[in-house]
Amino acid sequence: MTDRPIDALDKAKGKKVYIRLKNGEEITGLLKALDLHLNLWLEDVEIVGDNKRKINVLLIRGDNVLYASPV
Amino acid sequence: MTDRPIDALDKAKGKKVYIRLKNGEEITGLLKALDLHLNLWLEDVEIVGDNKRKINVLLIRGDNVLYASPV
Amino acid sequence: MTDRPIDALDKAKGKKVYIRLKNGEEITGLLKALDLHLNLWLEDVEIVGDNKRKINVLLIRGDNVLYASPV
Amino acid sequence: MTDRPIDALDKAKGKKVYIRLKNGEEITGLLKALDLHLNLWLEDVEIVGDNKRKINVLLIRGDNVLYASPV
Amino acid sequence: MTDRPIDALDKAKGKKVYIRLKNGEEITGLLKALDLHLNLWLEDVEIVGDNKRKINVLLIRGDNVLYASPV
Amino acid sequence: MTDRPIDALDKAKGKKVYIRLKNGEEITGLLKALDLHLNLWLEDVEIVGDNKRKINVLLIRGDNVLYASPV
Amino acid sequence: MTDRPIDALDKAKGKKVYIRLKNGEEITGLLKALDLHLNLWLEDVEIVGDNKRKINVLLIRGDNVLYASPV
Repeated sequence: MTDRPIDALDKAKGKKVYIRLKNGEEITGLLKALDLHLNLWLEDVEIVGDNKRKINVLLIRGDNVLYASPV
Repeated sequence: MTDRPIDALDKAKGKKVYIRLKNGEEITGLLKALDLHLNLWLEDVEIVGDNKRKINVLLIRGDNVLYASPV
Repeated sequence: MTDRPIDALDKAKGKKVYIRLKNGEEITGLLKALDLHLNLWLEDVEIVGDNKRKINVLLIRGDNVLYASPV
Repeated sequence: MTDRPIDALDKAKGKKVYIRLKNGEEITGLLKALDLHLNLWLEDVEIVGDNKRKINVLLIRGDNVLYASPV
Repeated sequence: MTDRPIDALDKAKGKKVYIRLKNGEEITGLLKALDLHLNLWLEDVEIVGDNKRKINVLLIRGDNVLYASPV
Repeated sequence: MTDRPIDALDKAKGKKVYIRLKNGEEITGLLKALDLHLNLWLEDVEIVGDNKRKINVLLIRGDNVLYASPV
Repeated sequence: MTDRPIDALDKAKGKKVYIRLKNGEEITGLLKALDLHLNLWLEDVEIVGDNKRKINVLLIRGDNVLYASPV
């Protein structure tokens, strides 16, 4: 079966990922779940940028994502 | 069944959540209902930012959401 | 049946609501009708912001809505 | 049958309406036709703002509409 | 049959139309074809604004259109 | 059969076209393929603007297109 | 069968591609997978611009893509 782009991230479930948002914020955390819109459920999250903080559980609305990477 | 990203927030129904909007406003309140667009019904709401205020009941249009977190 | 987020506003039909638009304008009026896009039909309307004025009947295109609240 | 938000404007067909666009332009004219996207066909049109002018027939693409009102 | 907003422009096929884009550019030309997205095929085109020029055949992507008018 | 707007460009396949993007970049090249979103496959491409350069093969995402023209 | 625009990039799978994003960032890498939204899975990635860095695996959300090219 052909790889889909989202598989690049899907394989990182349970592992640490790096997310960059369109607004320039950078987020790292453990990837718990994702869908085709790139809605992302992260845990043990660290946000860098205007809104610097640590958060236990975070749901990112997918349309804000610029790109994402397994760390 | 596989977790969906929205389950991160769905589990917080009846509890306090933190929302950050794309425009930088931050909102906390009790999560009464949500849907797949991230339309959110909050109660006992506090808005921080340009429009600082307290509100009993608030409906946020989902496309404004940057990310959300159970508190 | 599970509550939907829009029910937060739907219950306010015939009553006064507060709307904040993405452009910062604030609008209050009696809610006559709404739909799932948050297109809103208001009456006895007062607009605050760049376009301050009173209007008898107003149709707001839903994609402009930031959040809404029963007053 | 339940009122739909668009009925607020639909009832104004053949009458004068006021339109405010997202870019701040204000337009008045006789409403000839409209659809659910708020695409609008106006006649005897007057545009106020950056592009001030009078026009016989105007088709506004609905996604530019902020709000609309029967005059 | 009820008029649709797009009929305001559809009746102008083969005739000169005036288009204003969201970016402020103004375009006039003979309307050869249009569709429901307001994708427009113009001929004998004159563009005014940042990109002032004359062009024989032009296809405008509909989502750029602010409003349009038969001349 | 009625002409569709996209036919204005479709007839230019294999020939040189001029594309203006929403961000102001101007691109010329031989049109190899296009679809209804105005995704464009160009060859022997020249880009003018912030990112001035020559490129053998270019795929433009259609939602960036302002307008296009056979040269 | 008629060529589709995306085939311009699809033929570059396993090879190096150049991507320019709407925000001006430039990215090069080996193309592992792509889909019709231009979601892109790249490997051995180099990002140029505000967020200059090298990354092993990157998933770009397609709506950020301006244009793309096999290198």
